[in-house]
Amino acid sequence: MNIHDLRKQITRDRIGSEMHDFISELYPICRSITGNGVRATLRRIRTHIPLEIREVPSGTKVFDWLIPNEWNIRDAYIKDSRGNKIIDFGRCNLHVLSYSTPVKRKIKLSELRKHLFSIPEKPDWIPYRTSYYSENWGFCMSHRQLESLTQEEYEVCIDSVLEPGYLSYGEYLIPGSSTDEVLISCHICHPSLCNDNLSGIALSTMLAKTLKALTLRYSYRFLLIPGTIGSIAWLCLNEKQVSKIKHGIVLANVGDEGITTYKKSRRGNSEVDRIFEHILRHSGTDYRIEDFSPYGYDERQYCSPAFDLPVGCLMRTPHDQFGEYHTSADNLDFIKPWSLGDSFLKCLSAVSVLETNQVYSNRSPKCEPQLGRRGLYRDLGGNVDKKAAEFAMLWVLNQSDATHSLLDIAERSGMHFDDIERAAHLLLSAGLLEESTDQVQEVQSHAGTK
Amino acid sequence: MNIHDLRKQITRDRIGSEMHDFISELYPICRSITGNGVRATLRRIRTHIPLEIREVPSGTKVFDWLIPNEWNIRDAYIKDSRGNKIIDFGRCNLHVLSYSTPVKRKIKLSELRKHLFSIPEKPDWIPYRTSYYSENWGFCMSHRQLESLTQEEYEVCIDSVLEPGYLSYGEYLIPGSSTDEVLISCHICHPSLCNDNLSGIALSTMLAKTLKALTLRYSYRFLLIPGTIGSIAWLCLNEKQVSKIKHGIVLANVGDEGITTYKKSRRGNSEVDRIFEHILRHSGTDYRIEDFSPYGYDERQYCSPAFDLPVGCLMRTPHDQFGEYHTSADNLDFIKPWSLGDSFLKCLSAVSVLETNQVYSNRSPKCEPQLGRRGLYRDLGGNVDKKAAEFAMLWVLNQSDATHSLLDIAERSGMHFDDIERAAHLLLSAGLLEESTDQVQEVQSHAGTK
Amino acid sequence: MNIHDLRKQITRDRIGSEMHDFISELYPICRSITGNGVRATLRRIRTHIPLEIREVPSGTKVFDWLIPNEWNIRDAYIKDSRGNKIIDFGRCNLHVLSYSTPVKRKIKLSELRKHLFSIPEKPDWIPYRTSYYSENWGFCMSHRQLESLTQEEYEVCIDSVLEPGYLSYGEYLIPGSSTDEVLISCHICHPSLCNDNLSGIALSTMLAKTLKALTLRYSYRFLLIPGTIGSIAWLCLNEKQVSKIKHGIVLANVGDEGITTYKKSRRGNSEVDRIFEHILRHSGTDYRIEDFSPYGYDERQYCSPAFDLPVGCLMRTPHDQFGEYHTSADNLDFIKPWSLGDSFLKCLSAVSVLETNQVYSNRSPKCEPQLGRRGLYRDLGGNVDKKAAEFAMLWVLNQSDATHSLLDIAERSGMHFDDIERAAHLLLSAGLLEESTDQVQEVQSHAGTK
Repeated sequence: MNIHDLRKQITRDRIGSEMHDFISELYPICRSITGNGVRATLRRIRTHIPLEIREVPSGTKVFDWLIPNEWNIRDAYIKDSRGNKIIDFGRCNLHVLSYSTPVKRKIKLSELRKHLFSIPEKPDWIPYRTSYYSENWGFCMSHRQLESLTQEEYEVCIDSVLEPGYLSYGEYLIPGSSTDEVLISCHICHPSLCNDNLSGIALSTMLAKTLKALTLRYSYRFLLIPGTIGSIAWLCLNEKQVSKIKHGIVLANVGDEGITTYKKSRRGNSEVDRIFEHILRHSGTDYRIEDFSPYGYDERQYCSPAFDLPVGCLMRTPHDQFGEYHTSADNLDFIKPWSLGDSFLKCLSAVSVLETNQVYSNRSPKCEPQLGRRGLYRDLGGNVDKKAAEFAMLWVLNQSDATHSLLDIAERSGMHFDDIERAAHLLLSAGLLEESTDQVQEVQSHAGTK
Repeated sequence: MNIHDLRKQITRDRIGSEMHDFISELYPICRSITGNGVRATLRRIRTHIPLEIREVPSGTKVFDWLIPNEWNIRDAYIKDSRGNKIIDFGRCNLHVLSYSTPVKRKIKLSELRKHLFSIPEKPDWIPYRTSYYSENWGFCMSHRQLESLTQEEYEVCIDSVLEPGYLSYGEYLIPGSSTDEVLISCHICHPSLCNDNLSGIALSTMLAKTLKALTLRYSYRFLLIPGTIGSIAWLCLNEKQVSKIKHGIVLANVGDEGITTYKKSRRGNSEVDRIFEHILRHSGTDYRIEDFSPYGYDERQYCSPAFDLPVGCLMRTPHDQFGEYHTSADNLDFIKPWSLGDSFLKCLSAVSVLETNQVYSNRSPKCEPQLGRRGLYRDLGGNVDKKAAEFAMLWVLNQSDATHSLLDIAERSGMHFDDIERAAHLLLSAGLLEESTDQVQEVQSHAGTK
Repeated sequence: MNIHDLRKQITRDRIGSEMHDFISELYPICRSITGNGVRATLRRIRTHIPLEIREVPSGTKVFDWLIPNEWNIRDAYIKDSRGNKIIDFGRCNLHVLSYSTPVKRKIKLSELRKHLFSIPEKPDWIPYRTSYYSENWGFCMSHRQLESLTQEEYEVCIDSVLEPGYLSYGEYLIPGSSTDEVLISCHICHPSLCNDNLSGIALSTMLAKTLKALTLRYSYRFLLIPGTIGSIAWLCLNEKQVSKIKHGIVLANVGDEGITTYKKSRRGNSEVDRIFEHILRHSGTDYRIEDFSPYGYDERQYCSPAFDLPVGCLMRTPHDQFGEYHTSADNLDFIKPWSLGDSFLKCLSAVSVLETNQVYSNRSPKCEPQLGRRGLYRDLGGNVDKKAAEFAMLWVLNQSDATHSLLDIAERSGMHFDDIERAAHLLLSAGLLEESTDQVQEVQSHAGTK
């Protein structure tokens, strides 16, 4: 099946619901940057796609970093002096500071408060906090609950283990006819947070599941990894193969109701940047294009200066622009099937452009060829329906001089890539175009030196 | 005579009236892409300029096209059952579908209607329709008349001939001191339509008539050709000489009351593009600059990818933006002497810039030369009239480092080219400038690689 | 002492008052392009900085110009028929047309009026007029006074000397660790005019006085010269050393209450242009950036095509935009200590950027280095104060690939240069950066070829 046929079969509502269902399934799992929660998540993803689960031992040096000890947690609670569990990890895994060291003891309120985190401005929400690289323990709770604590002795228990083990991540390569790769990456290291991490996981999974049925030009590499340390580990362990990555996208926060945001790669004009800008410009809805900045998600690592990969980031609302970020309010209600489905379809459109964006040569470049006698042109004029198709053909013929890709032509003409691509297909069938021996990538890199 | 002196002698009103008179003379002739109407038109033009009339035999292969059979028409009519001529080609040559095959027979209304064309939204106008490359016959009429037809038998007669002959076009070269050429092209294939075709014919003719009296730097090649097939034929038959064309302009719809529109060449920053933009920006009136697109007039062929000539298109209202286009309302009232004269003067200004745009070198490039002792500078200050002239001199001196043309300097300074050119002339006389050995073209092509 | 420490010690009010005091001291001196007034001015400057006073003999050929005769004046007056001094040079040195030849005679009003200058639109102000290169004599007065003159015989006396002598100027070089130079130039040729000439003199003097206490990267060359002929003379006499000048600024009209104006060098994107734009953009106040034009102050000569030095011009209100220009109203009240101090601080900021703008290489360019274990990163997040500092570090790490200067990084990130520079300093101390062997200049010139 080719991608055009496939796009006709997928509806936003169905794929959006499927994604939301999958997120609901993964929501209760307590993930962190290492540990059994990550493995459980990867195993559920494996029910959809044949993901490889990789394990990197604690202590492995990955560039400037060391793989940390593995963290696992069985239980945690705070009991008041009457023995009531006032905080119970079993009810919400955000209650425990991620990577908390084990603790079990009685403690006064004044001492306990040094280990408690809340959000005074949002008194009903539980914050999500971590302490990966400096040993500590702590509890997160709503500010209302924190305020209600009285001067008494509490029993705190965190039944966690922090010891040498592994960092786990998932990797899945869908081979295409070329060894050139498209990287699709998302983070999988957050516990019960939906927009932040689960929306990206669901989109990656469903996109991989969809693409594996197709005959593809590019190879597609999916990485489902713990944030920061995961991408650093992958880049370090696969340094020799990194140059195969010709395009890439990081997926994060793709499920909230906000407008779509695309954050450009460090290069700022790479093909993936231009593709997402094109798709969003023609999407008929508001959108936001952000310039690259060296904070955000794993694009920070992919775009570090020694790699400088053409990897952007697709989001709806960026992490620093929604209040629910890193709180218990980033829950199953906060993400919407409509938004999830819309994000999916935009990714699929981007893949469609990547797959079909080519540089052609007009085989009849001296004046216009006579479209009429090939049945490509209206005879008596006036047919409004055909007009756009003809304009697209004229644009493709005029610009196909072995230096302009179809995306270039779409941008110069102001027409939608799909219309330009359809025109190119017609002209190719009529023998008026041929594939240029130049590769898009080379033209791209040439453009990059401007 | 040089172009500066000439420009002082020409007034917009006089040249505009002359053009309108010439259009009135050509208006009744029934032109098409071939045939005696074209020849008659070219002969009238020959009363003004020594045009060569070229004839290309039917069946000649010109790139992807064949020269079609020649079409001539003597008479055409529709008679009602009482023998009244309700449509008479003799009264308006738009009544016949151009390239109609001969027909003479009785026909029922239901059958006849398949061969009738009208414009329901403009019930009083007769449309102009053609069928060059697929055999057909037909009549065009006002919608009001079409609606009034009754269920009866009609007699239709089209006394036309469509058989091997020739495609005719006019060509005139005014030699300059250089063999580098400026192409001026217009189409001559429409019957009684004024803005569309006759305005361009009149402007080309009067411009050629004017320029032939001058000592010129460039050679000027005027082409008066049937649209599309004419430019394709010329490019094919003159392929080896095409590279002589360094600048060019297509003239079409230059007589209506709308603001001036300049449509850029495919290159988008060629010298002719920059010249017309400069002239329009300083014209003191509204104007429109359009990016290149591969539909319109013969710039489509000149700008096809294998030629990519620096040829723009000068119009007032573009064809797809006035309702009178290709209707009987594009008549002698629709075009105005003022507009025709204004379009003429803008072309003459453009020629003037082309002729005098040079790259100079400041012969005293270390600091400013002392303009005062050469009588080029006011002594006691305060003379407002001289100030602009001095600024222009300072700009020319500062920028004339063998890389900037006078047009570059005009654009950087924001001053009018004519003021900059006058300053350069003064400085040249004072020995402070010399012509650079670099050619403008080379500098241009360098600029083009940015 | 380094420039960062120094900047903390200087307050706008104190330096502004110091500058205003110095201007008050220089105000009464009658300067012109040559003569004892210039020497007296240079000697006063020498009480602050060890200025060299250079003397160029009259008649010396400097490029296209000759050094003029030296002009000195002892006294000048107009007496009415009753012997009353109605104009007295001793009361205001603007009263005499600068470079007036000697005259002493009785004269009728009708004849006298040919030698009188006033400003009808500003009837109380005395204009400032000169006639350097064409011999003449004259008096300047308020229009009110001119109008009150009656038909009688006047005695005019100008006790001046115009004869071979010298053109005097001041030069001071503060050596830095590099022989690459920063040029700071101002004109010193106007009599009692404050914004025009004295404000620039005061700023140059105080800046030189300040910088000479520092350890500097660049060498700083201060030129205090008569306008036009002074810079032409210096460039001619120092032609072989001109290429040492890597950056430069002309200072003029830096004391009025208007917003700051920076006029770009002829190159338009030189480092000094980008630095002043950066400083003004982050200044929190309105400002104006003007493109280069070949009129103004001595940047005309520094930016003449054979030199094309990267020299801009810092002003508050440009000369052609304040009515007080070249009149007695450009006096001690017209300039403000606040404005003078503000202009000084902006220059010092620019020097600070020049001194510290470097190209670095990230020594850990594969992914981000772990800032946390180096104490460079917050542990538990949330500390708003540190956030900007961390963003700056991430930007510097991401962009320091031996092609981007700190100024480039400041511009791409939108952050203030000082924040970026501080981050670079921290990272350098932590061993995460190293100086690139590439010079900023080379990167700059590369950028210039875009």
